[in-house]
Amino acid sequence: QEKTPMYGLIGQMLAAPGKRDDLLAILGESTGDMPGCLSYVIAKDPANADALWITEVWTDKDAHAASLKLPAVQAAIAKARPIIAGFPQHFDTIPVTGHGLAKP
Amino acid sequence: QEKTPMYGLIGQMLAAPGKRDDLLAILGESTGDMPGCLSYVIAKDPANADALWITEVWTDKDAHAASLKLPAVQAAIAKARPIIAGFPQHFDTIPVTGHGLAKP
Repeated sequence: QEKTPMYGLIGQMLAAPGKRDDLLAILGESTGDMPGCLSYVIAKDPANADALWITEVWTDKDAHAASLKLPAVQAAIAKARPIIAGFPQHFDTIPVTGHGLAKP
Repeated sequence: QEKTPMYGLIGQMLAAPGKRDDLLAILGESTGDMPGCLSYVIAKDPANADALWITEVWTDKDAHAASLKLPAVQAAIAKARPIIAGFPQHFDTIPVTGHGLAKP
């Protein structure tokens, strides 16, 4: 019996010029307690002063989809939207093995 | 006093044709217990049957450099090298906040 695969996202997010720290603060607030989230890391891009890299691991694709409907996440998206300039790069992944994944 | 920043890596690794599962097994064996490693996730790339995505978070850049000298890691690199076809994409990051990071 095949287990439902984990679901991963790797994305580069671009803040409006000078707004990276503000964006980081908004995103950091909203990602504390999301069911099915095994890892959610927000990083600065050392190559671009306005860019962030976000890497996520979820128990499965449905858990990620459900997270987008959480009130805290919807509030963060609304707050962040005016200072998001784009999503230049995005990769889906199928995580297989990992160290440092939270308990679901 | 400024804390030493964390160090992150996002990399796409290409296996020799048909060798992705073998490569994944080798990498998965060697990454269990590395000092300073807060997260190490190996994922399949759903867009390329020979590609993996590896995302890493380290306490700092020195911890990552030191890990490359661990006997278990050197053995894994030697074993994997013949079936690694390349590293098409690589991004350094500065992780700032995260859910699911292991204790150092």
